[in-house]
Amino acid sequence: MRTRLRIDLAYAGGGYSGWGIQPRLKTVQNELEQALATTLRIDRSLVRTVVAGRTDAGVHALGQVCHVDLPEGVELTSAGLANLGKKVQGALRQEPITINRISLAPEGFDARFSPLWRTYQYRIADSQAVNNPLHRAFTVQSTYPFDFPAMVELGHQLVGLHDWAAFCRPRVGATTIRELQSYEWVRDHDGVMVATIASDAFCHSMVRALVGAAVAVGRGKLTIAQVLAIREAKQRTSDFVIMPPHGLALVRVAYPEDSELAERAALTRNKRAADPD
Amino acid sequence: MRTRLRIDLAYAGGGYSGWGIQPRLKTVQNELEQALATTLRIDRSLVRTVVAGRTDAGVHALGQVCHVDLPEGVELTSAGLANLGKKVQGALRQEPITINRISLAPEGFDARFSPLWRTYQYRIADSQAVNNPLHRAFTVQSTYPFDFPAMVELGHQLVGLHDWAAFCRPRVGATTIRELQSYEWVRDHDGVMVATIASDAFCHSMVRALVGAAVAVGRGKLTIAQVLAIREAKQRTSDFVIMPPHGLALVRVAYPEDSELAERAALTRNKRAADPD
Repeated sequence: MRTRLRIDLAYAGGGYSGWGIQPRLKTVQNELEQALATTLRIDRSLVRTVVAGRTDAGVHALGQVCHVDLPEGVELTSAGLANLGKKVQGALRQEPITINRISLAPEGFDARFSPLWRTYQYRIADSQAVNNPLHRAFTVQSTYPFDFPAMVELGHQLVGLHDWAAFCRPRVGATTIRELQSYEWVRDHDGVMVATIASDAFCHSMVRALVGAAVAVGRGKLTIAQVLAIREAKQRTSDFVIMPPHGLALVRVAYPEDSELAERAALTRNKRAADPD
Repeated sequence: MRTRLRIDLAYAGGGYSGWGIQPRLKTVQNELEQALATTLRIDRSLVRTVVAGRTDAGVHALGQVCHVDLPEGVELTSAGLANLGKKVQGALRQEPITINRISLAPEGFDARFSPLWRTYQYRIADSQAVNNPLHRAFTVQSTYPFDFPAMVELGHQLVGLHDWAAFCRPRVGATTIRELQSYEWVRDHDGVMVATIASDAFCHSMVRALVGAAVAVGRGKLTIAQVLAIREAKQRTSDFVIMPPHGLALVRVAYPEDSELAERAALTRNKRAADPD
């Protein structure tokens, strides 16, 4: 039986070409896997992480989760496990990556397939918000006025089990049916408009398209009814934009009780093997 | 009578060698004055801003205030004044500087000499805090545990009218007597330790030395009594450090009612003409 580790981490996405490894590009996955290989003194090629939310280039994560299986024959003492997070953090000290915790994964845990839901946040500072220059790396600036109540209402009307093809970059063999569990807009203490969006899973570009639709409604370019009609048409549209990545952060991945991890993973794996997350 | 403008602004200090103009270095003052000269179409050499808080290299400001006098003969229409903030912001669009407001300064207003007090904040994320990689540009990271109640108590014991020579970089002819009006430590919703420090004015490096003293107490290297004794000795010390600039931000400058601006400015000018701020 190989040892599976659960890694809880956070990162500023600005300097990375996203989570997933790509040739000749700097990615979070590659930095993390190199740090793990160095710290555990195992060959780089034997370290393969599996992530809950494959974030795109420039997207941040505050509550990301991944797992990694130790190569056969490699064991960790409990003291080794207790120190591992600090050591991996040390190997990553030049990177804007925070290791929040490394723990033994419970039986049946799969970072990608076990989650019940994923939650993202998107931040837009409009003309009514404090424009904080310290927050520019993770907040979209806009000088336009927005119809904020209409954006709040759109969020409420969009939730539910639907085909989100109009909001997704198509991927062969992947379903675009998802249950959007919540979509709330609030203004924070600085007046920044913050969307919190949760779903069992998201198809590619879906969160940023959902925010783009709200921006179109907030600026009076689309009505709520038109957005709902676009969703029903199940075709990609140019009526709203995919919002830029730097306003987006994966904030939480929720897993079921340990006893239900394996069952949940099997269920999800059957539903959408070809999907991103 | 020349027209005096009050400018309320914010900036991320990381890319600047501080507020004040220095030859061959990038400074906030120089960027702002160039943007004003371009927008107002007046010669660069005729634009001279006077600031409330001369921030050091790397220090941020969220509530900075400065004033500028228009050259003789230059007038602004009320429409021109209403649009000026947006235009200057446009000229600064490549810079992490936010123009919050440009307004006509009331009679007697002096950005440097009229303030009643200035407030700074300092942020330290210790092992009990959320280590948010998006906040690293303005939060000092520390893996040590801190005796936080002792830091809170030190802050309370330090307030009052004292000679702060032990906390100041010496400057010829400048007094180091200041009234420290408040020094509060709280943990924010992420558990980050945030110091809020207010004084009528600060001598050079004083805020970062006050935080350094609290860190020494929090880590058990100095007692509160020892810090008080160091202050009484009125000599620079190596018993605590000047904290790094990126954790610090000028958050507010408070001015009196318009009717008291000139009187306050005259009072302050007499007290400390040779001082920084």
